[in-house]
Amino acid sequence: MIQVRQANRADAKLLMQLILEMGQHERLAVTATAGQLAEDGFGERPRFHAIIAEDGAGAAGYAFFFDYYSSFQGPGVFLEDLYVRGAYRGKGVGRALLSHIARQVIDGGDFGIVFNVLDWNQSALRFFEDKGASVQSDRKTLCLTGAALRDMAVTTLSTPGGSHARN
Amino acid sequence: MIQVRQANRADAKLLMQLILEMGQHERLAVTATAGQLAEDGFGERPRFHAIIAEDGAGAAGYAFFFDYYSSFQGPGVFLEDLYVRGAYRGKGVGRALLSHIARQVIDGGDFGIVFNVLDWNQSALRFFEDKGASVQSDRKTLCLTGAALRDMAVTTLSTPGGSHARN
Repeated sequence: MIQVRQANRADAKLLMQLILEMGQHERLAVTATAGQLAEDGFGERPRFHAIIAEDGAGAAGYAFFFDYYSSFQGPGVFLEDLYVRGAYRGKGVGRALLSHIARQVIDGGDFGIVFNVLDWNQSALRFFEDKGASVQSDRKTLCLTGAALRDMAVTTLSTPGGSHARN
Repeated sequence: MIQVRQANRADAKLLMQLILEMGQHERLAVTATAGQLAEDGFGERPRFHAIIAEDGAGAAGYAFFFDYYSSFQGPGVFLEDLYVRGAYRGKGVGRALLSHIARQVIDGGDFGIVFNVLDWNQSALRFFEDKGASVQSDRKTLCLTGAALRDMAVTTLSTPGGSHARN
C-alpha cells in the first residue's frame, strides 16, 4: 500500500535520484546536487519541502514545493515538482501527493497551489485540469540568469538619455 | 534623485497602496491587506522581501519578491511584482529596482530571477526582454485554489478502479 511521508535529510540521495529521473522525463538539465539539497532542504532554514510516496518495494514518487507569496492574495505554495515513477502511474500516487500538499495549504490558511507544467506534457495537464486546476493562460514565465543577470547587477540608475545618475 | 531602499514594517501601508495601484494596472483583484503584509513581510519569519524606489517627492515604484527554489538549479528568487508609477516611467526606475535584486541574487549565489508577465503587457515584456530575460514559452502556469483545492485536501488514496485504498 502507498504511503506518503515527509522527506528528511537521510532522503537527500533518494530525492536527488528522483529529481534526475524527473529531469530526464522533462528533458531538462539538472545541476543541483544531493549535498546542496541536504543543506538547503534540511538545514537550519529549510528553503523547500519534499514528500515521498512509497510502498514496501521502494519510492513511487515525490513532490517538491516551497512557500510562495502573492502580493495580491497572500501566502501560498509553489509546487516545483510532482513526479510518479513509470511503474506506479495510474494508481493514484500523484493524487495522494497532491492531496497531502492541499491539506497543508488548507491547514495553513494559504490561498492555493501555483505550479508550472510543460506545454507538451499533455498527461500532466490532463491530470491537473481533472483535479480542477485552472490554467493562467494570460501569464508568461520569464527567467533572468547568467550573463544578463550579471549585467543587471552592475547596472546603475540612468536618466532616459542614458547618462549616469548624479550622485 | 531616485534611491532604492529595503521596505520595513512602517512601509506596510505604502506597500499596500502601491500593490493596489499595480492591481489596477494589471486588472487583477487584490485581497491582501496592509496588516497581513506587515505580519508576513516584517515579522519573525519574513515570507517576502520588498524594496521601494523613491525621490524627495515620494515613492516612485516597488519590487516584491521571495525565495524560489528550483529542484534542478537550486536557490533563486521569484519576482512577484515590479511596478513603477506612471509619472516615473522611462526614467530608469524599473532598471534600478531590478538591478538591486540582481545584486542580491548574485551575492547569494542564486541561479537567477523567475517571474511572470501578463501576455497583454507588451511594455513589460519589452522591458524584460531588453534586459536579457528569456521567455519560457514551453511553460504554462496553473493554479489550484478554492473548492478544487478543498476537494483535493479531503481526497484519499484510490486504486485505479476508483475504490478507496485498504488501510
